[in-house]
Amino acid sequence: MFEGAELDQRVSKQEYAEREPALRAALIAAQARLAESDAALVIVIAGAEGAGKGETVNKLLEWLDARGIQAHALGEPSSEEAERPRFYRFWRRLPPRGQIGIFFGSWYTHPIVRRSLAESDQDELDRELDRIAEFERMLADEGVLLVKLWMHITKKQQRKAFEKLASDPDTAWRVSDLDWEFHRTYDAFIKASSRALRRTDAPHARWHVIGARDARHRQLAAGQVLLESLEKRLAAAPVPVTASVPLPAPAPVNVLNSLDLGLRLEREVYEERLAALQARAGLLARGLTASNRGAVLIFEGVDAAGKGGCVRRIVHALDARWYVVVPIAAPSDEERARPYLWRFWRRLPGRGQFTIYDRSWYGRVLVERIEGFAAPEAWGRAYSEINAFEEQLIDAGILVLKFWLQISPDEQLRRFAERGAVEYKRYKLTPEDWRNREKWLAYEAAACEMIERTSTEIAPWHLVPAEDKLHARVQVLEALCAGLESAIGADGAARKRRGKQRR
Amino acid sequence: MFEGAELDQRVSKQEYAEREPALRAALIAAQARLAESDAALVIVIAGAEGAGKGETVNKLLEWLDARGIQAHALGEPSSEEAERPRFYRFWRRLPPRGQIGIFFGSWYTHPIVRRSLAESDQDELDRELDRIAEFERMLADEGVLLVKLWMHITKKQQRKAFEKLASDPDTAWRVSDLDWEFHRTYDAFIKASSRALRRTDAPHARWHVIGARDARHRQLAAGQVLLESLEKRLAAAPVPVTASVPLPAPAPVNVLNSLDLGLRLEREVYEERLAALQARAGLLARGLTASNRGAVLIFEGVDAAGKGGCVRRIVHALDARWYVVVPIAAPSDEERARPYLWRFWRRLPGRGQFTIYDRSWYGRVLVERIEGFAAPEAWGRAYSEINAFEEQLIDAGILVLKFWLQISPDEQLRRFAERGAVEYKRYKLTPEDWRNREKWLAYEAAACEMIERTSTEIAPWHLVPAEDKLHARVQVLEALCAGLESAIGADGAARKRRGKQRR
Repeated sequence: MFEGAELDQRVSKQEYAEREPALRAALIAAQARLAESDAALVIVIAGAEGAGKGETVNKLLEWLDARGIQAHALGEPSSEEAERPRFYRFWRRLPPRGQIGIFFGSWYTHPIVRRSLAESDQDELDRELDRIAEFERMLADEGVLLVKLWMHITKKQQRKAFEKLASDPDTAWRVSDLDWEFHRTYDAFIKASSRALRRTDAPHARWHVIGARDARHRQLAAGQVLLESLEKRLAAAPVPVTASVPLPAPAPVNVLNSLDLGLRLEREVYEERLAALQARAGLLARGLTASNRGAVLIFEGVDAAGKGGCVRRIVHALDARWYVVVPIAAPSDEERARPYLWRFWRRLPGRGQFTIYDRSWYGRVLVERIEGFAAPEAWGRAYSEINAFEEQLIDAGILVLKFWLQISPDEQLRRFAERGAVEYKRYKLTPEDWRNREKWLAYEAAACEMIERTSTEIAPWHLVPAEDKLHARVQVLEALCAGLESAIGADGAARKRRGKQRR
Repeated sequence: MFEGAELDQRVSKQEYAEREPALRAALIAAQARLAESDAALVIVIAGAEGAGKGETVNKLLEWLDARGIQAHALGEPSSEEAERPRFYRFWRRLPPRGQIGIFFGSWYTHPIVRRSLAESDQDELDRELDRIAEFERMLADEGVLLVKLWMHITKKQQRKAFEKLASDPDTAWRVSDLDWEFHRTYDAFIKASSRALRRTDAPHARWHVIGARDARHRQLAAGQVLLESLEKRLAAAPVPVTASVPLPAPAPVNVLNSLDLGLRLEREVYEERLAALQARAGLLARGLTASNRGAVLIFEGVDAAGKGGCVRRIVHALDARWYVVVPIAAPSDEERARPYLWRFWRRLPGRGQFTIYDRSWYGRVLVERIEGFAAPEAWGRAYSEINAFEEQLIDAGILVLKFWLQISPDEQLRRFAERGAVEYKRYKLTPEDWRNREKWLAYEAAACEMIERTSTEIAPWHLVPAEDKLHARVQVLEALCAGLESAIGADGAARKRRGKQRR
């Protein structure tokens, strides 16, 4: 993997002086075309310490128009980042369409360093690499051009580089004890890196290994790779606009239409159980907060299914300092300029917080699919993207609960009429609600497919017959309590385990 | 101030049941109208511990449509917040137009608590209150409706409230040692609060003191105040669209046209000085980074004045991990929906970072003024808003350097022609550049007024004759080095002082 990069490749001063201006002009021209395109460019700069990664970034920044590029040198996570899934810090820094983000200190750093310092085993490394591959696949599918540059030097070259830096008082600070530790573990680093490169090299996310011994060669090679990747992408024919596809039809018998919508609760029973469940949910939520874990609740269902009412009963049990309710409607232009899941990543809960999504990322495979806002290949791959996303939440200790509220068309009509009649509910009824109603069966079919593909063992869908609001609210609160209970239980068990290890 | 609130105001269960539905309906109707308006609503919930602030927030959240409201219960700042000026955490949470943000734990908490625990003196409190008054003035001017609710209870009522909470195992956790400390210092708290309310009560930011002993009274009173404030604001006649105002004309002799544009540097001298200055700037920047202070650099000047070239020479001296270059063009829709300075607050540097703005908040009094994008009352008040903003940066230890690059109309023309001719510079030239050129004198006049009003002793403008690019770059780097030097010096001196105190 690194053999080619160990050949003695050098560029003379003169050759550099001859080639640099043309390369720079071509790069800036390509950047200008990128700015007009619908692609974002993500550059990953990786490689051994001492290989001139920082210098490469500096040079790229010097060559390119600073107004469309940002470098992200990531050290320790901030407290806000440390509270969230590990990819949060990368998601929040993704460049919008037309712009460039350089990541040095990327998603590769943590798994490779841990493995080379023997802080993780190979299985863990492989799991991390799978996650990275998923992430990059998603980026590419969402129109992000990925260029991954690996700066390679040999162990001997690394030692020389460190010694040179250390001998000059102006640069000695750049060689830390950790760097020497890296040098001692160079072979393990190369082994882990080699594995990482192999498992994450893909047509849509190519690795480019560059011999970094000679600064001028390194620089020109990096610029050349970047230029070629950009030109290839910008020359690619635009994706043809998809012809409209027929609306899906639901199976005659399916998980939604076979729900028992006759389930009902007497108001008196409801009041009593609601009060008890709210008290219980409040107590359990406090436990979740105390154990510094977050929670994500998702509410989906047709218009007027009672999502807002369920949310209101839940937040009634919570302290205002614990939760936010995030309604999902049309994305802002900042959101539209980035991969689809960005708008959800940016609102993820920190420790001890609940984020309650009123509609969610599932809009991709519901409204966006039905209305043709997303192309079939976009919503088609969303199922696995969503599953991977939710897995990351859960791995970060976040409780994920997903509710689908189901009512009949007749009940929806009745509720629309009621909304029109009750003054303080009138604001909820829009012409769009009537339009959506006409596509009832298509939504039912899309929802069934969604449930089929995303009701996973770690994040199952809770299907809630909601014809009777009272019954629905109680069922949702019961599921919430059960979810919180098992989350706290798992946490308690984990604590106990840790406690044992300590003894 | 609190006398009225100490009267024995109670609402019976029956009265509450009668009044609540109408109030709630009116509130939700008003919220729907707010959503359509160009106003954002900020609700501040303050008052003594035990006065039911959290319950009030919970009730408001229950009454209103959760999809347009967010409560912010602010405890300790995150590490990202702690690295930035204190108001950063409030700015980043400002609601967009049409939405509601509830702040409990607001900008009042810190100064009042510090004063009541005798951690600050009255002068410090007053300075904080002045800053708050400025902030709220700006919010109101930018179309934010401010409703400030103060929940009042007497010391005796507070003790009772704490004792009641403490006696129930379900609520005992809500009374902390700090709460009892607050109780012991209740009188000082009331004194500081009374001063705070008096000095920050204004027609555009009214305080409403509510007797909070009786929960039902407190709740209805809070809802009523909110409703009346909303209705008053929504009934207000829309601000008339300003007729176009004549373009300003510059004084015959002014600070810009009297700059010596004949200053030049030989390329040889330039190369030498540039290299020395960049080395020096890099070293000093490292010092700033090491002392965990941030820096904000601003570049303004007509098109083709050489802002980008100066920025490039500066970043060449910096490590990529230290800086971001933020180009300021048209705001995004998320930015447009919030007060003008929001887009700059969100990009402020953390510790050890440089944020370099290519164009800046001064666009308000330059392009927005000239092109009529901002009404005269908006850009007219921007001078003092900007001065207050920069003062906050400097108070937070951020180095602020502002550069105005000046060239002649002839030189601009020459550079436009050159841009058209050189391939990799062509992208920089747009039709807008030619349009702006026609308003040369108006821009000169606006810039002169800007410099006049915002060249303060803490953040002076550096006026740079830029007819000769080489001279300009050297002058900018010299100013940068001097600025960094004095910032590090001040820091060193401050450290020495702290060192002495310790002995």
